[in-house]
Amino acid sequence: MRPSGRALDQIRPVSFTRGFTAHAEGSVLVCFGDTKVICNATIEEGVPRFLKGKGQGWVTAEYGMLPRATHTRNRREASSGKQGGRTVEIQRLIGRSLRAAVDLKALGERTITVDCDVIQADGGTRTASISGASVALAEALNALVRDGKLAANPMRGHVAAVSVGIYQQTPICDLEYVEDSAADTDMNVVMLEDGRMIEVQGTAEAEPFTPDELNAMLALASKGIDDIVVAQKSALAE
Amino acid sequence: MRPSGRALDQIRPVSFTRGFTAHAEGSVLVCFGDTKVICNATIEEGVPRFLKGKGQGWVTAEYGMLPRATHTRNRREASSGKQGGRTVEIQRLIGRSLRAAVDLKALGERTITVDCDVIQADGGTRTASISGASVALAEALNALVRDGKLAANPMRGHVAAVSVGIYQQTPICDLEYVEDSAADTDMNVVMLEDGRMIEVQGTAEAEPFTPDELNAMLALASKGIDDIVVAQKSALAE
Amino acid sequence: MRPSGRALDQIRPVSFTRGFTAHAEGSVLVCFGDTKVICNATIEEGVPRFLKGKGQGWVTAEYGMLPRATHTRNRREASSGKQGGRTVEIQRLIGRSLRAAVDLKALGERTITVDCDVIQADGGTRTASISGASVALAEALNALVRDGKLAANPMRGHVAAVSVGIYQQTPICDLEYVEDSAADTDMNVVMLEDGRMIEVQGTAEAEPFTPDELNAMLALASKGIDDIVVAQKSALAE
Amino acid sequence: MRPSGRALDQIRPVSFTRGFTAHAEGSVLVCFGDTKVICNATIEEGVPRFLKGKGQGWVTAEYGMLPRATHTRNRREASSGKQGGRTVEIQRLIGRSLRAAVDLKALGERTITVDCDVIQADGGTRTASISGASVALAEALNALVRDGKLAANPMRGHVAAVSVGIYQQTPICDLEYVEDSAADTDMNVVMLEDGRMIEVQGTAEAEPFTPDELNAMLALASKGIDDIVVAQKSALAE
Amino acid sequence: MRPSGRALDQIRPVSFTRGFTAHAEGSVLVCFGDTKVICNATIEEGVPRFLKGKGQGWVTAEYGMLPRATHTRNRREASSGKQGGRTVEIQRLIGRSLRAAVDLKALGERTITVDCDVIQADGGTRTASISGASVALAEALNALVRDGKLAANPMRGHVAAVSVGIYQQTPICDLEYVEDSAADTDMNVVMLEDGRMIEVQGTAEAEPFTPDELNAMLALASKGIDDIVVAQKSALAE
Amino acid sequence: MRPSGRALDQIRPVSFTRGFTAHAEGSVLVCFGDTKVICNATIEEGVPRFLKGKGQGWVTAEYGMLPRATHTRNRREASSGKQGGRTVEIQRLIGRSLRAAVDLKALGERTITVDCDVIQADGGTRTASISGASVALAEALNALVRDGKLAANPMRGHVAAVSVGIYQQTPICDLEYVEDSAADTDMNVVMLEDGRMIEVQGTAEAEPFTPDELNAMLALASKGIDDIVVAQKSALAE
Repeated sequence: MRPSGRALDQIRPVSFTRGFTAHAEGSVLVCFGDTKVICNATIEEGVPRFLKGKGQGWVTAEYGMLPRATHTRNRREASSGKQGGRTVEIQRLIGRSLRAAVDLKALGERTITVDCDVIQADGGTRTASISGASVALAEALNALVRDGKLAANPMRGHVAAVSVGIYQQTPICDLEYVEDSAADTDMNVVMLEDGRMIEVQGTAEAEPFTPDELNAMLALASKGIDDIVVAQKSALAE
Repeated sequence: MRPSGRALDQIRPVSFTRGFTAHAEGSVLVCFGDTKVICNATIEEGVPRFLKGKGQGWVTAEYGMLPRATHTRNRREASSGKQGGRTVEIQRLIGRSLRAAVDLKALGERTITVDCDVIQADGGTRTASISGASVALAEALNALVRDGKLAANPMRGHVAAVSVGIYQQTPICDLEYVEDSAADTDMNVVMLEDGRMIEVQGTAEAEPFTPDELNAMLALASKGIDDIVVAQKSALAE
Repeated sequence: MRPSGRALDQIRPVSFTRGFTAHAEGSVLVCFGDTKVICNATIEEGVPRFLKGKGQGWVTAEYGMLPRATHTRNRREASSGKQGGRTVEIQRLIGRSLRAAVDLKALGERTITVDCDVIQADGGTRTASISGASVALAEALNALVRDGKLAANPMRGHVAAVSVGIYQQTPICDLEYVEDSAADTDMNVVMLEDGRMIEVQGTAEAEPFTPDELNAMLALASKGIDDIVVAQKSALAE
Repeated sequence: MRPSGRALDQIRPVSFTRGFTAHAEGSVLVCFGDTKVICNATIEEGVPRFLKGKGQGWVTAEYGMLPRATHTRNRREASSGKQGGRTVEIQRLIGRSLRAAVDLKALGERTITVDCDVIQADGGTRTASISGASVALAEALNALVRDGKLAANPMRGHVAAVSVGIYQQTPICDLEYVEDSAADTDMNVVMLEDGRMIEVQGTAEAEPFTPDELNAMLALASKGIDDIVVAQKSALAE
Repeated sequence: MRPSGRALDQIRPVSFTRGFTAHAEGSVLVCFGDTKVICNATIEEGVPRFLKGKGQGWVTAEYGMLPRATHTRNRREASSGKQGGRTVEIQRLIGRSLRAAVDLKALGERTITVDCDVIQADGGTRTASISGASVALAEALNALVRDGKLAANPMRGHVAAVSVGIYQQTPICDLEYVEDSAADTDMNVVMLEDGRMIEVQGTAEAEPFTPDELNAMLALASKGIDDIVVAQKSALAE
Repeated sequence: MRPSGRALDQIRPVSFTRGFTAHAEGSVLVCFGDTKVICNATIEEGVPRFLKGKGQGWVTAEYGMLPRATHTRNRREASSGKQGGRTVEIQRLIGRSLRAAVDLKALGERTITVDCDVIQADGGTRTASISGASVALAEALNALVRDGKLAANPMRGHVAAVSVGIYQQTPICDLEYVEDSAADTDMNVVMLEDGRMIEVQGTAEAEPFTPDELNAMLALASKGIDDIVVAQKSALAE
């Protein structure tokens, strides 16, 4: 029934390519099927003004899309002079998700910024970004440990995210663009690897959803995220 | 256990004052306890460019806070030159929530903009805004019916929203500021009056949450929203 | 002859509601008839950079209108990315008027910002704003005295403002919207309670005015301001 | 008593150099002593959107200062990304003053924009701008008449402006920078050549002023403007 | 003598990967050694306003860098609210270079926008961008021919660019970052494949250069561009 | 053959008027025929952040045009909220050219900003700006020497610039607007007075150019710049 022939609970082929660019402390190309995002983690000493002297670090994220990551060209945000509402919403979500996975006290007065830049979009750019950013963040933190700047990696575990939705009255996992644009409900779920939830954002695009549908979607998400965490761990083990 | 002495499932006193300002087609002052928001609905003929000629209407929202709605003064967004990320996120949520409740085809080529301006904040400004905007929207649509421009009100029912969260390990409903700033998890739930969900946005501020906690929060939200819908109906019946 | 039936020198019913919102050091809802403005005074320690180390304080103002304070909706300035020329002009006028009434040396290195936000407009929003801001400012300064931070209130007296104009060849006082939009000349006068002038801004909208007309308008303004000062004093005495 | 040795009612040497730049329909360099402003009037067919189809024209103005027109360098507004409050206030004043002198119906659906760019500042840049803009506007309108596009020049007379103030307790006319920065009250007066007033803007910088002082200042302004109008007429007669 | 051991006239390994992303009409990843740029060409019907009705097309370019394309992170231009001066300068250069190679009349009323986004920078990002954009543009124009929308490809030949400079008193070709940052003179040369010049931009970073040095650099550039054109042709022949 | 009857290698009448405005440390009106630019040099103590503590000074430039410097009015950049791409490109070129002529170490921790404001444009505004800015810079630096703040003027010689181009298949020097807008190639050359090059920027507007044409243009530029340097020296000798 799905355009791709995938099973209802089947995520797309997922890959995490580490060291994708040369300069960042953590650099990952994440692919969720045809959705491709470069995630670069940058470590800088110091923290934003509102955290000065509080003895903790900060993790934040920025999100962007190449103008032609999509079927038609979008105006370049740098040239239009501001980030659109969708961009702002997504990068705040990525930042919150990552922070929930890091012990900021243990990080010390450092700021890690993860840039997620979509080079090709086919649905699920925010969930791919979160999942890829988690690997780039882990890579950067491991480097701090290797360099003797941290005694241990302050991540509480991997963070992964997947979209779920109601498509043709049926809950499915990891929607690609053709499914997403026709779905009644679209939900993004972010979890720690232990199965606890960090973010749940469900939106009824066309039809409101019931508590039963919500729980069906959450079960799909939980399984999909397990599969993604396996891929994350495997990438970091290489 | 709650600072206000409220029961865990008890919402704050809720009121909807219709006709609060003179010019808007729908104007409501909504109070959720000490959180006070002016919701003004404006009807304009025509639709945004991306909807031209599609035979449907549009409902959108904008959100703002008076600089001194909060304990300390926030910089005025008009003067800083842009809306902050939080503002953008909230007004997109309000707009989506309202659209989910309106038959846009039946509305015809009209645009309704609901301005939600917080004059005093004590937690839950976005849920108060959605709930008040729903009443202002209904008021404006009723006027279109009264004026013979629409045969029937195209709303599918009231929309209401409430926040729920985990506070001191316990799920509670309708958090005020002192609870919100200390909560482990904060979730905003938007429902149609028939109990179906339009938006669910849960964020682990401090501690990830489990599926059981999620379901406990959803149950609280459902009860709280029922109480709010009663107040909405009563306000519109006056 | 006036649409409202008022005498030529009669101001609209004026009220000042103190403590209108909860958080500001001074908070006043001022009504000049159907024109309603929330005036919130915020005290912050320190002064802007250009005053650092000069041993004096600063008083400034910002002005805004809810998008639907008027008959038709105005674009939200926060969303259009800048304050319009009219807004800038008005908030500079309010700030200058307030500063002229305060002994800035006696204030010490503090900054008081008064936010004037129009929630309903029917002509005279700038004169209502100045008159209300004066009460909010007095309230905030009295609090500093009460808290022992100042020995005495450094205001030199109340500041009040009223509009006068030439309407159907006749000078009148405190124009409401229908008068204002048809007037030949529009003048805003700001005075200290002792009758001395702080600002006089007269504009020939349609017909230039003569020195005699100017003096007739100033006499009306003086009487109107006396009436407003009585209301200000009464509000602060409560 | 004045730093320059001028009499209390004596304006600075005033000159209007026509044809100062080559391309504008009207181009004037105006000097009020050491204050020098280039005033260029541009005629364009058509009117702004809010006037479309109303059978009238429009006159507007823009104001700027070279960054080093003043004793110390000001940041270039084009590079800071917005016009400051003072700039906005002044260009609105210039535009209103010019419009009051033109029969916009007789102008037809044309827009005239007068750019006033201060190349050297020594007090009174706004009054020099208005007086010079009036000559540039007349020059441009005369060209329309000469080209047969208008039957007669639609100006109702010259517009001129001068500053007056209270300096060392004494009313004086046409303040230069050293007087302006030490004055208690600063007033700008704009008049038609027939002596009727278009704008009066008086501000108590340090001390409030009395009605008597106001009238003394107005008398000085009237005499000063008479002198300026003589120079305007002489420049246009060449 | 060169850090990489390259000969003075030797360019870095150059590659053009076609079809790098899925949606653009032409998509190329160009690598000049470790400098990597994604070049996406988008075809849109219609032309900018200033060309409407002139019977010709338009080719333009936009340039950006991922924030962490460089050794340290640069602020994201979309978030800072404007494109920096360097970005503007480069994208104007790319656009001019491409337009010089296309018969815009033969293109018809179409606009082609080539987005050049640097994902990894090691010197020469503008010359790599121009060279890659030329291939993406050719790919997009070939598609128009294939689809029967154009009778023939309106390009006058390939465009390629290379940087040359004076490094340790010696002219060298295709500077990488370590050479570029230590060079006395930096010149970018853009040529058509027939050896004629489209742009020459030479800047004395530290020491002015002589006509002899200029000619030595141009000779190196000519040879380097020949090598790049071979690679461009080979990529398009695949 | 040239519209003005000038010889192919003949520059327009060039003049440098020193002390053109009163406040700047160096102030020059430069005229290249009908192109007129005010160049004001401002000296400020201190350097931009990126140079703090490096024991050197900084020289930078800003460029602007009065809205009606040209045949039709351009939108004021201060009002449109940003500097256009052409403006940014030109001011970066001016700044680089001036810096190449100054020993920044010898300048000490000072910043000199040269504002180039075009009041009338007839082609060659950037070359006139550079040539005039060089004189204004020299004037400002001489003042530092005169005041005993510098032991010697840290300029390495005069900087001058001229445009050359291919017009009707013929290389010519110092193009005015009618030539510039019809030229096949446009090149700007910046040289030190000793004949060494600082910047060469050649653009094929319509037809690519050959190395022989490039060398013919450079020879013309060298002669034209010699003539300009004579005028610069003569202006400074007065």
